[in-house]
Amino acid sequence: MTLYKRYADELATLIASGALQPDERLPSVRETSRKRALSEMTVLRAYHRLEARGLIVARPRSGYYVCAPRVTPPKPALSKPLARSTTVDKSELIYELLSAIRRPSVVPLGSAFPSPKLLPLKALHASLNRSVRGLDPWRTVVDLSPGNPELRRLIVLRYRGDGIAIEADDLVITDGAMEALNLCLQAVTSPGDAVIIESPTFYASLQALERLRLRAVEVPTDPETGVDLDALTTALKRHKPAACWLMTSFQNPLGASMPDARKQALVALLAQHGVPLIEDDVYGELHYGESRPRPAKAWDQEGLVLHCSSFSKCLAPGYRIGWAAAGRYTAKVERLKLGSSLSAALPSQLALADYLAAGSYERHLRKLREQLIAGRDAMLAAIQQHFPGGTRVTRPDGGYFLWVELPKGIDTRALQQAALARDISLAPGALFSARDDFGHCLRLNYGHPDDGRVSSALETLGRLARG
Amino acid sequence: MTLYKRYADELATLIASGALQPDERLPSVRETSRKRALSEMTVLRAYHRLEARGLIVARPRSGYYVCAPRVTPPKPALSKPLARSTTVDKSELIYELLSAIRRPSVVPLGSAFPSPKLLPLKALHASLNRSVRGLDPWRTVVDLSPGNPELRRLIVLRYRGDGIAIEADDLVITDGAMEALNLCLQAVTSPGDAVIIESPTFYASLQALERLRLRAVEVPTDPETGVDLDALTTALKRHKPAACWLMTSFQNPLGASMPDARKQALVALLAQHGVPLIEDDVYGELHYGESRPRPAKAWDQEGLVLHCSSFSKCLAPGYRIGWAAAGRYTAKVERLKLGSSLSAALPSQLALADYLAAGSYERHLRKLREQLIAGRDAMLAAIQQHFPGGTRVTRPDGGYFLWVELPKGIDTRALQQAALARDISLAPGALFSARDDFGHCLRLNYGHPDDGRVSSALETLGRLARG
Repeated sequence: MTLYKRYADELATLIASGALQPDERLPSVRETSRKRALSEMTVLRAYHRLEARGLIVARPRSGYYVCAPRVTPPKPALSKPLARSTTVDKSELIYELLSAIRRPSVVPLGSAFPSPKLLPLKALHASLNRSVRGLDPWRTVVDLSPGNPELRRLIVLRYRGDGIAIEADDLVITDGAMEALNLCLQAVTSPGDAVIIESPTFYASLQALERLRLRAVEVPTDPETGVDLDALTTALKRHKPAACWLMTSFQNPLGASMPDARKQALVALLAQHGVPLIEDDVYGELHYGESRPRPAKAWDQEGLVLHCSSFSKCLAPGYRIGWAAAGRYTAKVERLKLGSSLSAALPSQLALADYLAAGSYERHLRKLREQLIAGRDAMLAAIQQHFPGGTRVTRPDGGYFLWVELPKGIDTRALQQAALARDISLAPGALFSARDDFGHCLRLNYGHPDDGRVSSALETLGRLARG
Repeated sequence: MTLYKRYADELATLIASGALQPDERLPSVRETSRKRALSEMTVLRAYHRLEARGLIVARPRSGYYVCAPRVTPPKPALSKPLARSTTVDKSELIYELLSAIRRPSVVPLGSAFPSPKLLPLKALHASLNRSVRGLDPWRTVVDLSPGNPELRRLIVLRYRGDGIAIEADDLVITDGAMEALNLCLQAVTSPGDAVIIESPTFYASLQALERLRLRAVEVPTDPETGVDLDALTTALKRHKPAACWLMTSFQNPLGASMPDARKQALVALLAQHGVPLIEDDVYGELHYGESRPRPAKAWDQEGLVLHCSSFSKCLAPGYRIGWAAAGRYTAKVERLKLGSSLSAALPSQLALADYLAAGSYERHLRKLREQLIAGRDAMLAAIQQHFPGGTRVTRPDGGYFLWVELPKGIDTRALQQAALARDISLAPGALFSARDDFGHCLRLNYGHPDDGRVSSALETLGRLARG
């Protein structure tokens, strides 16, 4: 850990323990520098870091002061979806709501992507340029699915780093994780089958179920620890589902992560019922803790876990490169990929292989995570300050979404309309359920650095929500 | 037309009319140059052109001689598929046969793509590099389906040049034509529906029908003029299909093109029955005649034609960029695209937009068509020379496939095995039917310039077929 981070953490501990009191003035930069034998730059960077986390505040011509302890808003409760399965008819609503979010002039709190300003676009462009320059022409026609061998090799290395033993041949490169998830779902279901999803769930799962004419079984999901295993057990017995589609780490929209023991139990439970798990793991790299949470795939003995991820959330959204490590279904997924879109774009595959080989991905991720932590803390503080009493909100340890539960009676689709009229987007709760649950909830994206517009938008949202 | 081409055409006419007789020696290059006031280079290029077309031959130390008139092998007859509809279960066979074709050491007569050496890869790479350099980061997250506006505008200009009035908003950019076709099929069908296809048909239609659990109705297709309209009328009444999937120009594998009047009648017939037409038009740009054949879409008044094409066969295979102009189904196709793979790769889209805007696409296509004509004629000559008596073969006016009908009793799957053992691929007829028709047929690709390996491979194939 660098010097300034260590010093910042030391001060944060003092603040948390009460050794440094609210409104207490921190020693000046020069004074600290002398006393601690740190450069002035190091001290200043530590103070900036604490400021970004909302722990201290600069007062003009006076210095840095400890902030009043943040009262974090309470967390949302476990969801309570109906136990019945249901057909899905949400595509039109989802399309309509998402179209509104895409207006470029809007403060993108409803966006599904982090700010492209946080991504190493220049390095990616250099990789793109470098990799096509020496391209063997034959690669453009023979390098089809399962995908470029070098890219698959490099992705496999990352799995191995997480202790997951797969081979390049176990991977199918796809057009983003979305295609991977869709192909995996198609590989293990037939029309009319029941599929278990989370409540709330990522809306793409609803679109996929509708398209493939599957029935949704929504299972209660804890905002911190993910899908409820007791409820899941009941649902498995009752609905005999053909598959289970879950986000086990930094779930969208909750940010929930299943602890290791729960993931392990999940895999064992599904193996016992012979039910494949489609594991959507696109946010795994955006962990705030020391290491990447292991996906459920890590405990998969039977090849029943179809693990899907991509580079779209953490590196290269427009490149549309994802993959599936589909266990015993790999051959089937590869055939489906060949038949539905032949292969992923070769320039994108080559550029990402070049970028990964160049070795700066980890550095980029570390920086990105820092920025996301700061974004989370700032947004939590703004919600605490501006949103109506009774608001509940998650405090995720990864990803870039907050799930906000407003007091019952506030309709977040109406709130979305009012916000859009003020050039602010949000993702209303209605997007995240096959039924009409979560009408008073919303998902906010904190992956966009505040240029003043984000904090102002949150103030406006709070005012609109208070009515 | 350039000077050498005009002179070559003049000589070709003399040969065709019999004014120049077989085995007659052409005047020497120097002599012709003097008499006709053409440069020696021009005369030589004209002779090379005639040689490539198999009309004259150089004899060492002697000069150029008129070849014996080519007896073109007869054309295959109209196919006679069964009138029943059928479920499709071909994916495994197709996958297995295609995997064999992909071995890089093999002479790629079974390939679905033209040689990448005929494509302007350097210019494309320059476009790729140029277009991402100035990229607005926001485009990577907001420029989703229906696709990059500039690319759609440039594609629309090409439609307009063919007299088809569509707008950029009528287009959805996809991951190649294959995804476009699949999404269109999905947009207009439900599991269990019947779908009309050609006999023989492009195998991707079989894969798509199987994946979407549709029933195939194969309709007789003439090797020159395409699907038989009387048989189609009967099939429409009998099977009440949900859709019709046809390649109206340079059909794969036959090379058949429906004449304008037939296309017009087709559109009227389908409109009368209210049946949408999924029109696969990926070879339209590879016409050998003066102008691009108009697709059926040109006569579409009702928005019932879903026209699909791509850049994969004529410009940029690995870029995976195609599109659908889906008429009244455009909104539905756009939603399906968003839900199944979000959007096409942005670098690929930007590069193609840049390349099209640079204005050298037409020049590239003209050159490519020339090379394909030469390839066709050379392959026809080799088949005539080496294949068994009773062989029938098409003589297409576009694309890069020959459809070869061997004498009954020759099994082209066995032939494929024997050929692969000698590092030659071919596409056996079994690929192109939901049933077991065309067991004695094969598709050959002449889009690979002969470096000696192609002509030698054809000689070997002929020997193997003769048994």
